[in-house]
Amino acid sequence: MLKLGGSVVTDKERPETLDGPALERSAAAVASALAEGALEDGLVIVHGGGSFGHHHASEHGVTTTEGTDEIGAVTDIHGAMETLNRFVLSRLHEQDVPAVPVHPFSTAYRDEAGTLHLPTGQIDAMLEAGFVPVLYGDIVATAESGATIISGDELVTHLARALGADRVGLCSTVPGVLDEDGAVVDRITSFEDVDAILGESEATDVTGGMAGKVRTLLELEAPASIFGLESIDSFLAGDAVGTSIE
Amino acid sequence: MLKLGGSVVTDKERPETLDGPALERSAAAVASALAEGALEDGLVIVHGGGSFGHHHASEHGVTTTEGTDEIGAVTDIHGAMETLNRFVLSRLHEQDVPAVPVHPFSTAYRDEAGTLHLPTGQIDAMLEAGFVPVLYGDIVATAESGATIISGDELVTHLARALGADRVGLCSTVPGVLDEDGAVVDRITSFEDVDAILGESEATDVTGGMAGKVRTLLELEAPASIFGLESIDSFLAGDAVGTSIE
Repeated sequence: MLKLGGSVVTDKERPETLDGPALERSAAAVASALAEGALEDGLVIVHGGGSFGHHHASEHGVTTTEGTDEIGAVTDIHGAMETLNRFVLSRLHEQDVPAVPVHPFSTAYRDEAGTLHLPTGQIDAMLEAGFVPVLYGDIVATAESGATIISGDELVTHLARALGADRVGLCSTVPGVLDEDGAVVDRITSFEDVDAILGESEATDVTGGMAGKVRTLLELEAPASIFGLESIDSFLAGDAVGTSIE
Repeated sequence: MLKLGGSVVTDKERPETLDGPALERSAAAVASALAEGALEDGLVIVHGGGSFGHHHASEHGVTTTEGTDEIGAVTDIHGAMETLNRFVLSRLHEQDVPAVPVHPFSTAYRDEAGTLHLPTGQIDAMLEAGFVPVLYGDIVATAESGATIISGDELVTHLARALGADRVGLCSTVPGVLDEDGAVVDRITSFEDVDAILGESEATDVTGGMAGKVRTLLELEAPASIFGLESIDSFLAGDAVGTSIE
């Protein structure tokens, strides 16, 4: 499973602007890995919202827990993310990656207890057929709250468990988790390893700062890593890159 | 549950052309019914493929049982239907209908036995939030066959059962099931009622001619009707219109 960070595939400074070269680089890496047979058990891609989803979400005051039942908010957020998803798919298709969309809003929801339900039978069937399912940070219908945000990171952890992913990679704008001196931490096996570095500084990023990413990846059975775009080929080839979280 | 036939909302003679006035008429009827409180338990809309999906499907030789694993075929068919769905949603939004998309390819699949799996928890959650879910004839990942077609009619019968629909209406280009003299048959309670009229003449329409529609509607617990666009307001108001199938 490969997560393409929203900051990687979009220009976060400018509303609804792709980072075309980064996206093309990612698509080419996936295409090469597929051509070399490195992904014989299939690949699921999840991308973030970057400059497409986030500003609409904050404009309408919608978070992972604060919902909306206003159709205008729903269409702004979901519409922007569908647009980004079409761009991502089209760049993947240009490189002959058999990518297919899975719109989270079409299949997932949260129940009264806030528990996420995201059936994965359709994703298994897509993988068996040789397709590369592409999901993204989106909104989901939520009991008693209208629709709330689901982050790309939440999708990754849910899907990694449900699909029994072998490996999980988060392609980020940084080369891994950085220590006080800016060096990449090789390996994290418990949150205490990095508590002093990450602290709670990013707790305000509702869809998951680095501390949140590390916490959720630690809970996964599958080995995970956080790495920069320069390491995407190595990750897809099966190599250890960036920060390994196990 | 309201099905808008593909021939109603598109111009079937011209590839990828909307029937704008018919779609606007349908959207206005839904908006009025919502405003009048006639749909307090919610409404699910399903639309057909008309001139958007069908020609791509036949060009690529894809049917409800003959699948494809070619990404070009998948993106042609699914892409055209996503485009039609965006048009339908946008006309509904213009009339203030809180319509939200549910892309069948994102959530449904067929297993090895050909059985359709289409979870509906997300649709229930959307209805509870006051949204109007809109689905459409599409493709679905299919075990051992890549992707096959799912017709709007198949979606309607599956969803009517799964959601426990109170009433099902098929808005068609004809005012109902017609007898030998062109008069609307008021009521059908078994296929023998209309065997002589419908016969097997439309058996070649893979996504469901009138005979197929009548057969599947007879199997539903919910009362169903087939009617023309001129009766859509009456149907939504709860009146008996066109041909009732019980």
